Amino acid sequence: MRPMKETYIKELRQIQPNNPVLIEGLPGLGLVGKIVMRYLIKQLKAQKIAYLYSPHFPYFVLVNKKGNVRLLRGTFYYWKNPNEAAQDLILFTGDSQSQTIEGQYEITDCLLDYAEKNRVHNIVTIGGYRMETNDKPKVFAAATRKDLLDTSVTSGASLSSFGSPIVGTAGLILGLSKFKKIDALCLLGETRGYIPDPLAAKSVLEILKSTFNFDVDLTGLNEEIARAEKMVIRLQAIEEKRALQAEEIKKEDEKKTTYIS
Amino acid sequence: MRPMKETYIKELRQIQPNNPVLIEGLPGLGLVGKIVMRYLIKQLKAQKIAYLYSPHFPYFVLVNKKGNVRLLRGTFYYWKNPNEAAQDLILFTGDSQSQTIEGQYEITDCLLDYAEKNRVHNIVTIGGYRMETNDKPKVFAAATRKDLLDTSVTSGASLSSFGSPIVGTAGLILGLSKFKKIDALCLLGETRGYIPDPLAAKSVLEILKSTFNFDVDLTGLNEEIARAEKMVIRLQAIEEKRALQAEEIKKEDEKKTTYIS
Amino acid sequence: MRPMKETYIKELRQIQPNNPVLIEGLPGLGLVGKIVMRYLIKQLKAQKIAYLYSPHFPYFVLVNKKGNVRLLRGTFYYWKNPNEAAQDLILFTGDSQSQTIEGQYEITDCLLDYAEKNRVHNIVTIGGYRMETNDKPKVFAAATRKDLLDTSVTSGASLSSFGSPIVGTAGLILGLSKFKKIDALCLLGETRGYIPDPLAAKSVLEILKSTFNFDVDLTGLNEEIARAEKMVIRLQAIEEKRALQAEEIKKEDEKKTTYIS
Amino acid sequence: MRPMKETYIKELRQIQPNNPVLIEGLPGLGLVGKIVMRYLIKQLKAQKIAYLYSPHFPYFVLVNKKGNVRLLRGTFYYWKNPNEAAQDLILFTGDSQSQTIEGQYEITDCLLDYAEKNRVHNIVTIGGYRMETNDKPKVFAAATRKDLLDTSVTSGASLSSFGSPIVGTAGLILGLSKFKKIDALCLLGETRGYIPDPLAAKSVLEILKSTFNFDVDLTGLNEEIARAEKMVIRLQAIEEKRALQAEEIKKEDEKKTTYIS
Repeated sequence: MRPMKETYIKELRQIQPNNPVLIEGLPGLGLVGKIVMRYLIKQLKAQKIAYLYSPHFPYFVLVNKKGNVRLLRGTFYYWKNPNEAAQDLILFTGDSQSQTIEGQYEITDCLLDYAEKNRVHNIVTIGGYRMETNDKPKVFAAATRKDLLDTSVTSGASLSSFGSPIVGTAGLILGLSKFKKIDALCLLGETRGYIPDPLAAKSVLEILKSTFNFDVDLTGLNEEIARAEKMVIRLQAIEEKRALQAEEIKKEDEKKTTYIS
Repeated sequence: MRPMKETYIKELRQIQPNNPVLIEGLPGLGLVGKIVMRYLIKQLKAQKIAYLYSPHFPYFVLVNKKGNVRLLRGTFYYWKNPNEAAQDLILFTGDSQSQTIEGQYEITDCLLDYAEKNRVHNIVTIGGYRMETNDKPKVFAAATRKDLLDTSVTSGASLSSFGSPIVGTAGLILGLSKFKKIDALCLLGETRGYIPDPLAAKSVLEILKSTFNFDVDLTGLNEEIARAEKMVIRLQAIEEKRALQAEEIKKEDEKKTTYIS
Repeated sequence: MRPMKETYIKELRQIQPNNPVLIEGLPGLGLVGKIVMRYLIKQLKAQKIAYLYSPHFPYFVLVNKKGNVRLLRGTFYYWKNPNEAAQDLILFTGDSQSQTIEGQYEITDCLLDYAEKNRVHNIVTIGGYRMETNDKPKVFAAATRKDLLDTSVTSGASLSSFGSPIVGTAGLILGLSKFKKIDALCLLGETRGYIPDPLAAKSVLEILKSTFNFDVDLTGLNEEIARAEKMVIRLQAIEEKRALQAEEIKKEDEKKTTYIS
Repeated sequence: MRPMKETYIKELRQIQPNNPVLIEGLPGLGLVGKIVMRYLIKQLKAQKIAYLYSPHFPYFVLVNKKGNVRLLRGTFYYWKNPNEAAQDLILFTGDSQSQTIEGQYEITDCLLDYAEKNRVHNIVTIGGYRMETNDKPKVFAAATRKDLLDTSVTSGASLSSFGSPIVGTAGLILGLSKFKKIDALCLLGETRGYIPDPLAAKSVLEILKSTFNFDVDLTGLNEEIARAEKMVIRLQAIEEKRALQAEEIKKEDEKKTTYIS
């Protein structure tokens, strides 16, 4: 057994993918990346093929309801496209991002090695983008190659015109993929970010389907979206009530002040 | 002499243990792990067999009452079970946990190497679990193998049904032990956590005795438990007095306010 | 492709410089170093010759207006002096400084290796120096060799007579260059530091031109300086208004207090 | 030239010391260690023999009044005892302690290697110990060997009877020296700690002289002690004035409150 000195990938089985696209989504703003991946894996019935372990993940373990324990990790899944002429998918998600700068670079390096080994030429990274809006969430796109970007824009993504940074693994994959001659696209769903946001995830999935020509039924997300909306409304009501109370207290204070002086 | 570049174990003597169980308890919530280990080592008259040193422990040294100084470290003890058919114990405790993420992984790796070398097949890790309760503290169990978990439940442990994480070395040992083909069980005693909690420690010791069939008289903890209870009562009295005073001040304020406006 | 385990330099092309001076300016106080370098590179039409990558830069990537993405990095530029007898310039700037102590040392080491390889004998590092002043910003100089310092003082730089430290890459280059038999000079422009400060940058450029005998037209900075001054005036007006309001509120409070007691 | 990847010592000249004692004092509480070393080096006219450089020191450089720059470092000095039968001294001080846990261990390791190479059998580390007192500052001693401790107690040092930790390099040297078969003594001067404390330094020097049988005139510290005392008195006056004002404001507030309600 190898000691946990650095990030490594433990393969569960070898695959022979056909011109695969790797899609990455880790926990982050609004959990957009994580929700997208969880939904894709479930709907496509993708198969586990490898784990990524790292001493740069936080130092706790997870306990499931049966009392079983496991290390934080990332997991790769594989989906063989039934259309033999089309691209297979390798899906990557996980429990956490690295907690250190050096760890973020190391984990991304390790993921790209695995992608290269499996002859991946395109990677898509998924994340959230903080925005206060009540409209249908937009999806912002950035990429390492113009045609990849154009395809996503044709599919409905927007350009992030203000040159903001992309933080974390979703960003570093784009930054480091160039050195591997792999092209990468990042899709960021607009989200308020403070609760899990399946609506933003759905927006991303729509662009994803259209850009890479695979089919997934997205209606399964609607119930989760309805629940999230209810929670937002409840939180807004609490917030408004608080604001009103604060306003009343302020008025009361002003009355007193007037009376005294 | 080796430089302190990484965690290492300095063996004081070799042992030939019989199918040993390694029990680990480091300082943490309510000092449950530390109290359990200290009591076991004393009652069983276990013998020191090795030290674990690490540059990831905090950078201070301890001074004893005689003015003697030593580095922070972990210590392994060995107890030969007088029942030759039964399992020997290796006990591990220490002054501190690692202060960095990478250190937590490195120290756990090092401990597991030592366990493997001594043909340990089962590890138990001990810790505390924060809970506000006045009942007899429960002990929550999690494990890497179902039969190990079941045995502890039969002995009175509860399943932690809400999937919370186990933080620190007690958790990482479970996460990393799988790679060594070692099975591990974690026992967490319920504790308020803000003072050393010998009652929670006693609850854990009861489960431990029963799960691994060794005998230790626990009455020696009763005096310490009585002292801790007195301290809790004193702290609660102080807290209630403070709450009362705050209440009175609030009432006074309201009287004044009413008068003014 | 090499993994991103440590800082490294990727050369785009080899150069045969004539007794070159390396000038360094990274983001810092008042962005003085960054503005100086950006202006020099543009005016001299210097050519890109190498990138510096490091896992110690922050873990995000930059997106440009076209949606294209790149890693944080440093960039080396080369300017062949048309006067064949005079010194060529190698210019270094970048997106960020390292976020860790060890990274700061590693990046500086790497830059000095590159300087040595290109037979650089003199380095100038540029930065800002916090000072509340309305006068023309002074430029403070410090150096590893007396004659280098003297030349800059003759050109108008001042001695920093109070022995304050120079923080970051601009400082470490001076500290570490001695081990390479390279001499280095640091020029720090006085700046309030809270907004980009092209005026401080211009002061530094004047000293630089004069010290190293090359010619650059600095009038191109005047428009930027005018904009920055307007912003300072606007910020000061806001600040004064706030101070006045606070003063009035205080007076009101005093009136009330007087009335009551 | 070696890159600054890890802590190393650059020797300026070789020495052939006679059974030397190494005395260490770095910046810390009340600057006690630093003042002791500075005074000893000056009085004994000790000679510079080596520098210690480390990428774990803070990332800035120091500028002197002449505009000259240097890296943060530690410095070793050598004093040949004119009494040929007595012990020579190696003195170590520096600009800073390490900023990271791993750096603290690495720097201490490096210093101990150097001590071993020079056949040092005894090390003394100097520091401050926070204590609010107006008495003559005591000096607390801790050691790795009983006779070393006893000698310092005979010379007037006290035992630190409450088992508190010794933080930083002064502590780690004691912790790690055991592995080198070097004995070490730590002397901590009582100090309020918030300003440089030459009185505490003098107390330590008295013990030091007496324990290791060398002679140094300590009257040179008296002027510095007088200045420090004046500053303490001035700070106390400011503090008392503040307390008085706060008291008056409180009384005024109570009057108002009484009037209103």
